[in-house]
Amino acid sequence: MSAPSNGNLIGVGTGPGDPELLTVKAVKALDRADVVAYFAKQGRGGNGKAIVGDLLKADVTLLPLYYPVTTEIDKDAPEYLRQITAFYDASAEMVAAHLREGKTVAVLSEGDPLFYGSYMHLHVRLADRFPTEVIPGVTAMSGCWSLAGLPMVQGDDILSVLPGTMAEAELTRRLGDTQAAVIMKVGRNLPKIRRALDAAGRLEEAIYVERGTMANGAMTPLASRNDAEAPYFSLVLVPGWESRP
Amino acid sequence: MSAPSNGNLIGVGTGPGDPELLTVKAVKALDRADVVAYFAKQGRGGNGKAIVGDLLKADVTLLPLYYPVTTEIDKDAPEYLRQITAFYDASAEMVAAHLREGKTVAVLSEGDPLFYGSYMHLHVRLADRFPTEVIPGVTAMSGCWSLAGLPMVQGDDILSVLPGTMAEAELTRRLGDTQAAVIMKVGRNLPKIRRALDAAGRLEEAIYVERGTMANGAMTPLASRNDAEAPYFSLVLVPGWESRP
Repeated sequence: MSAPSNGNLIGVGTGPGDPELLTVKAVKALDRADVVAYFAKQGRGGNGKAIVGDLLKADVTLLPLYYPVTTEIDKDAPEYLRQITAFYDASAEMVAAHLREGKTVAVLSEGDPLFYGSYMHLHVRLADRFPTEVIPGVTAMSGCWSLAGLPMVQGDDILSVLPGTMAEAELTRRLGDTQAAVIMKVGRNLPKIRRALDAAGRLEEAIYVERGTMANGAMTPLASRNDAEAPYFSLVLVPGWESRP
Repeated sequence: MSAPSNGNLIGVGTGPGDPELLTVKAVKALDRADVVAYFAKQGRGGNGKAIVGDLLKADVTLLPLYYPVTTEIDKDAPEYLRQITAFYDASAEMVAAHLREGKTVAVLSEGDPLFYGSYMHLHVRLADRFPTEVIPGVTAMSGCWSLAGLPMVQGDDILSVLPGTMAEAELTRRLGDTQAAVIMKVGRNLPKIRRALDAAGRLEEAIYVERGTMANGAMTPLASRNDAEAPYFSLVLVPGWESRP
């Protein structure tokens, strides 16, 4: 008996939350996958898996990849880097074991796989060893500005995607140097983000979107939102397109 | 007989080119639309319509919106602005006429409707007068980096979306001030973009993607691409994510 050919690795973008925002190609990939892998926190189901829930075949093999518990470790410490690297290495090998058996493995990725997605950690470890396909998805930011009905960029506008984690002065400088901006990782950075927008003269335009395209999503002008910590799925949008014909 | 209720306006993102990259929601919208409107150049079929071609119902009413021929007019001249504004006004009224008859009108938008999409010109003219929904789509840039299998941004990376039309010094400055970049509107700006990337020390990383997710798409390191004018559907990608765990 000959060894099976290697199976296919598929990075599947699941979109921003609404299962109908999966692409047709993503739905077909889930239908042909033997194994569906996804990242999740210990004790949680995983956001990507929650999105595709009803689309999974009854006989599919689920491969949850549970992040190590690192809440006690400083994210800049060598020990954090060691643990997270070991986790991604081990996760890639678990996926590789299925691929070597000839199985097609779909790895779920919220939004778009190569745009801030955890799938990237598997991709860089496996794409040169196995046939690999990446199915793009609708990003969380597209989901949010569509829900808000907010025209974002047009013509020669510059868009800056900025993490809310950056230093206040740096954030202020960049917000004053772009037509449109999306601020990610809002969470506990909300008061700082508000101050930076105010200093850059952009606060009045800014829209806060919470849980973008989830069923319990909400949006409000940032200027009228309080400073309480924002949930994980929240963004601040600053639209461009000032000269509308 | 009472007047019909107003119909729904739906901005439909058709994704980057592959019909399977429409979302399930977009496919359903095309199925329930009475009228499908799309922008096109005179004598052309329209890119959005080409993408969804096989998904259109046989009995759907097509509403092509043909751009005025303005190739002889400077895009900064008042006459250009006057003509293009009159065109968007007239297009919005053509769509509004169907909406007032109670028809559901889907407006096709390549990529994502509120991300550099022509649909935006209708949205700002109609969304406060008619029930409106925007269905986000996969952007051309997501299609391109997925085809290239290129991890773009991770963690606290900044992404800058830049038009290739901007002045060389300004482009150089911005390319040196971001982790990742997408350069749109490549066309005849390719030599300038190459010089700016070189001056910013980013040329070796840059990937040129031509016709992203079309059947005849191609990608190559920008450093090895010649200076011939790039086709409309081309992008330059500069990936971030230098510190990979």
